[in-house]
Amino acid sequence: MVALDFWFEFASTYSYPAAMRIERAAEARGVTVRWRPVLLGPIFAAQGLTDSPFNAYPQKGAYMWRDMARICASLDLPFRRPSPFPQNGLLGARVATALDDAARPAFVKALYTAAFGDGAQISDPDVVSDVLVGCGLPARETLTRAQSEDTKSRLRSAVDTAQAAGVFGAPSFVCEDGELFWGNDRLEAALDWAAGV
Amino acid sequence: MVALDFWFEFASTYSYPAAMRIERAAEARGVTVRWRPVLLGPIFAAQGLTDSPFNAYPQKGAYMWRDMARICASLDLPFRRPSPFPQNGLLGARVATALDDAARPAFVKALYTAAFGDGAQISDPDVVSDVLVGCGLPARETLTRAQSEDTKSRLRSAVDTAQAAGVFGAPSFVCEDGELFWGNDRLEAALDWAAGV
Repeated sequence: MVALDFWFEFASTYSYPAAMRIERAAEARGVTVRWRPVLLGPIFAAQGLTDSPFNAYPQKGAYMWRDMARICASLDLPFRRPSPFPQNGLLGARVATALDDAARPAFVKALYTAAFGDGAQISDPDVVSDVLVGCGLPARETLTRAQSEDTKSRLRSAVDTAQAAGVFGAPSFVCEDGELFWGNDRLEAALDWAAGV
Repeated sequence: MVALDFWFEFASTYSYPAAMRIERAAEARGVTVRWRPVLLGPIFAAQGLTDSPFNAYPQKGAYMWRDMARICASLDLPFRRPSPFPQNGLLGARVATALDDAARPAFVKALYTAAFGDGAQISDPDVVSDVLVGCGLPARETLTRAQSEDTKSRLRSAVDTAQAAGVFGAPSFVCEDGELFWGNDRLEAALDWAAGV
């Protein structure tokens, strides 16, 4: 079965609908999804960006919030604009890195729902802990592992891997042949490419 | 019949596929398209941008060219990356402004094909003249009208109208109720909104 790398960042707005719908869309095409947390901070910094482009360009930001509301409504996803924006997704990314492949998708979807469905503060360990518990995962043990040097190092390597693959924003999808797609609105095109459709 | 404002700029890459496919997509939903040339120069300048974001952020630019090639291939549209990029779309925008509503779409599509299908220099009056002739339009007379004070003033007003509607990039689609959609990939959503689907 062919695989697709799904690079996401918890602060990224459009990663939320992508995370919520990628499983069904991938299954329909026989594609395996590799859920890969990444940090946009260093990826944006490498491009000379010190803030989200949606803050740096307020008109684009205002449009994005309206676009997100429309997209979530069309997908029947709850949506609430988080404040502040962007949130700090570092803890979530470390937890997602620490979890094994089987546990990761449910946690990722639940944390995105907390961030963009409920407007929760996902940098707060208590919020992340509640999300872990809600997924039936061992919260304290997972949070400890998330803050280990091994996990931190693996996440840093993942950022390097993403940058080497050309990732400059999130969500991004990278096919096994290296073909890169960017944005929730390119999910179907990425899956079609991966599946050789 | 409901109408949709289609704001396009001849230097804008994603406006090309949008222009080439909007008529069929609009007709399928019973929506009338108002073809409205605009200039991104002043719109970008108002956001503090002095160059195309695809030049200001080279990784995003590299991705865009690959994405454009894929999109044009999927639509069976010829594609050639113009050099320099962005081209100066001012003359084209003035000509499109000077033409009447019936003549405008064919000219716009032909000039986009010259710019992004052939890589022609669309700031060259000879190129624009050839495109007008190819559309069966009176080239010399139209070019003279395009450079008249009346046309220049109407185009400046159009930029103001676009900005007042929230347009910050191209292509953009504005529905009669003011709902704004940005990007070739939002064409269907914009038409659905306009048609009340």
